[in-house]
Amino acid sequence: MSDQVEKIAIIGSGPAGHTAAIYSARANLAPFMYEGYVMGGSAGGQLTTTTDVENYPGFPDGINGPEMMQLFRKQAERFGTKMVQEDVQEVDFSQRPFRIKGDKTEKLAHSVIICTGATARRMGVPNEEKLWNNGMSACAVCDGALPFFRNQPLMVIGGGDTACEEAMYLTKFGSKVYMVHRRDELRASKIMAERTLKNEKIEMVWDSVLIDSIGTDFLTGARIQNVKTKEEKEIELAGLFYAIGHVPNTKIFQGQIDLDETGYIKVKPGTQETSCEGVFAAGDVHDHKYRQAVTAAGTGCAAALEVERWLAAQGIE
Amino acid sequence: MSDQVEKIAIIGSGPAGHTAAIYSARANLAPFMYEGYVMGGSAGGQLTTTTDVENYPGFPDGINGPEMMQLFRKQAERFGTKMVQEDVQEVDFSQRPFRIKGDKTEKLAHSVIICTGATARRMGVPNEEKLWNNGMSACAVCDGALPFFRNQPLMVIGGGDTACEEAMYLTKFGSKVYMVHRRDELRASKIMAERTLKNEKIEMVWDSVLIDSIGTDFLTGARIQNVKTKEEKEIELAGLFYAIGHVPNTKIFQGQIDLDETGYIKVKPGTQETSCEGVFAAGDVHDHKYRQAVTAAGTGCAAALEVERWLAAQGIE
Repeated sequence: MSDQVEKIAIIGSGPAGHTAAIYSARANLAPFMYEGYVMGGSAGGQLTTTTDVENYPGFPDGINGPEMMQLFRKQAERFGTKMVQEDVQEVDFSQRPFRIKGDKTEKLAHSVIICTGATARRMGVPNEEKLWNNGMSACAVCDGALPFFRNQPLMVIGGGDTACEEAMYLTKFGSKVYMVHRRDELRASKIMAERTLKNEKIEMVWDSVLIDSIGTDFLTGARIQNVKTKEEKEIELAGLFYAIGHVPNTKIFQGQIDLDETGYIKVKPGTQETSCEGVFAAGDVHDHKYRQAVTAAGTGCAAALEVERWLAAQGIE
Repeated sequence: MSDQVEKIAIIGSGPAGHTAAIYSARANLAPFMYEGYVMGGSAGGQLTTTTDVENYPGFPDGINGPEMMQLFRKQAERFGTKMVQEDVQEVDFSQRPFRIKGDKTEKLAHSVIICTGATARRMGVPNEEKLWNNGMSACAVCDGALPFFRNQPLMVIGGGDTACEEAMYLTKFGSKVYMVHRRDELRASKIMAERTLKNEKIEMVWDSVLIDSIGTDFLTGARIQNVKTKEEKEIELAGLFYAIGHVPNTKIFQGQIDLDETGYIKVKPGTQETSCEGVFAAGDVHDHKYRQAVTAAGTGCAAALEVERWLAAQGIE
C-alpha cells in the first residue's frame, strides 16, 4: 500500500465524478479518481453508451455522449486530477483515513466522493445489444424528443410510476404508445395509473412480456408474448423504451454507509453527506428522481465544495 | 391581457432559467421566459458580467461568461422557448392561473419557475466598475485559481463565514491574503474565525474599510481607511475579493411565497417546490450555499422535471 494519504478519492467518472474532480482539483486538492471500466458499464458512466445528448446545457446543437465525457475528463485532468482506470473492489470506511482497494492499487484517503452511478435494467432480449441507441433506450426523457420517434409507434416496457410517466411523456412525440406489462394491472400509484389508462394515445398490452426486438440497423418492431395464453405477436415500432428500473452501483458500500431499501445511498437532506463522516455521494448513485447529466454534475460540484470545507475543518489543506 | 394561459412561465435567464427552459421546451411545454434586463444585472444572469468560466463542466479550455450564456440561450430557443426581454414587475400567486405583469405584457400561467438569482454586494468604490473582472471579483471559488493571482498579494473584504472561507481558499494561490474587516473581531463562527486567525498567510486588517481600488487596466492596489483613527494606507495587490454577501432578487415575491430571514426562497427539502403550489424555484435565488453555474443548472433541470409532472397531474399537458 502506498504510504501517501490522498486528500480526496473520487470513485466513478460520469458527470458527477468529473465535476467533483474539476472543483476539487481547482481547489488544489489533487483528487485521485477511480475511473473504473466495469462497474456501471465503462469509464465515463452511462453517457458513454448513449448517442446524442441534446439536453446538457451549453451544447445547442447536441453532442454525443462519449465526446461530452471526453471534454469533462480533459477539464478534470487539466486542473490536476490523478486518474487510474481501475474499479474499486473493496472499501473500509470503519476508520480514517479510509482504505480503498482497487483492481491493482490500495490507497488511503482522508475523504471519499462516491459517484458510481446506476445501471438501467435491461431485458437482454435478442438483438438488444445491436439495436441499443438505434431505437432502443432506457430513458424517454433523454431520447423521446429525437426526430426519428416523431409520429411513430413507440413502446414502453414496465408498469410502475416511471413507466407511466415515460409512456405519457412519449405521447407528446409518438403516434401511439404501447405499454407492455407482465400483469393485468399497473403497479403504479392510483393517480398515475388512472391518467395512463385514460390517455387515448396509450394502448395497454396486458399480461405480456417482450421476447424479441426486431431490426437490422434500426429497430422496426418487437415480439411480444402473452404470459397466460403463450400467444406471440409482432408489433411495428420505431422506438422501444425500457422502464423497468435502475440498479444503483452500491454493492461494495453495503454495510459501510446507509443505503435505502432499493440500494441508493442516503444523504443528509440539503447536503451530499452520507452516514459516514468524510464520505460524500453525488449523481445517480443517490438520485432516483432526476437522473440527468446536469443534475449529476450539479451534485458533483456540491459534494466537492462540501468536501473542501470539511477537509479544511479537519486541518487538511 | 392576453387570453392565452402559458403552461410555464420562467422568470430569469441565468443557468437555472435556461436549463429549466431547455427541459420544459423539450417536453413540448413551450415555456415563456422573462429574460429581464435590469433585475440581477442583465439578461443571462451574473455570468454575463464575468470573464473566463473555467469550472463549468464541458469546456476544458474555459469559456467566457457571456458566450456561455449565449449557448444556453440558443439551446433553449432551439426547442421552442418563447422569450421576452422584460423584467417582471409584479406577480399575483393568490389564485391559479397565476398572473404575471412584465414591463409591457401581462400574462397568465399555470405554473412558474423563479430563477431570478442573487446579486453580489459591492462597495461601489472609485474605479470599481472599470477594474471589475480585472483583479476585482465577488467570487473567490470562481476566480481564485486564475493565473494572474498566483503568488501575488490578494485581499478579501468582509468578516463573516464566507469571507473566512474565501480568504483561506485564496491562501492556496496568493503569496499572502489581507482580510479587511470594519470591526475588531470576526463575525464568523468561532471555528472558522480561529482557523482564519491561525493561518499564517492571512493578515488581518482590523477596524478598516476599503475606500478606493487602484489600477489603470488591472488592479494594482487598494486604499484602506482605519475607521477609528481615520488613518489611510495603500496596499499593493493583484486581486481584491468582496465577500460582503449576496442579495437574492426576491423583492417582487415578498408576501407571495415564503422567504427565509435573508430573503432567499424556501423550498421543500429534496424538491424545488416553494410554499405556493405550482410555483417552483431554482438557482441562486434559493441557494446561498453553492452558488455555481452548474449547481444552478442542475436545480433548473430538477424544477422543470417537477413542473412537468405537476402539470401532468393537473391534466395540463
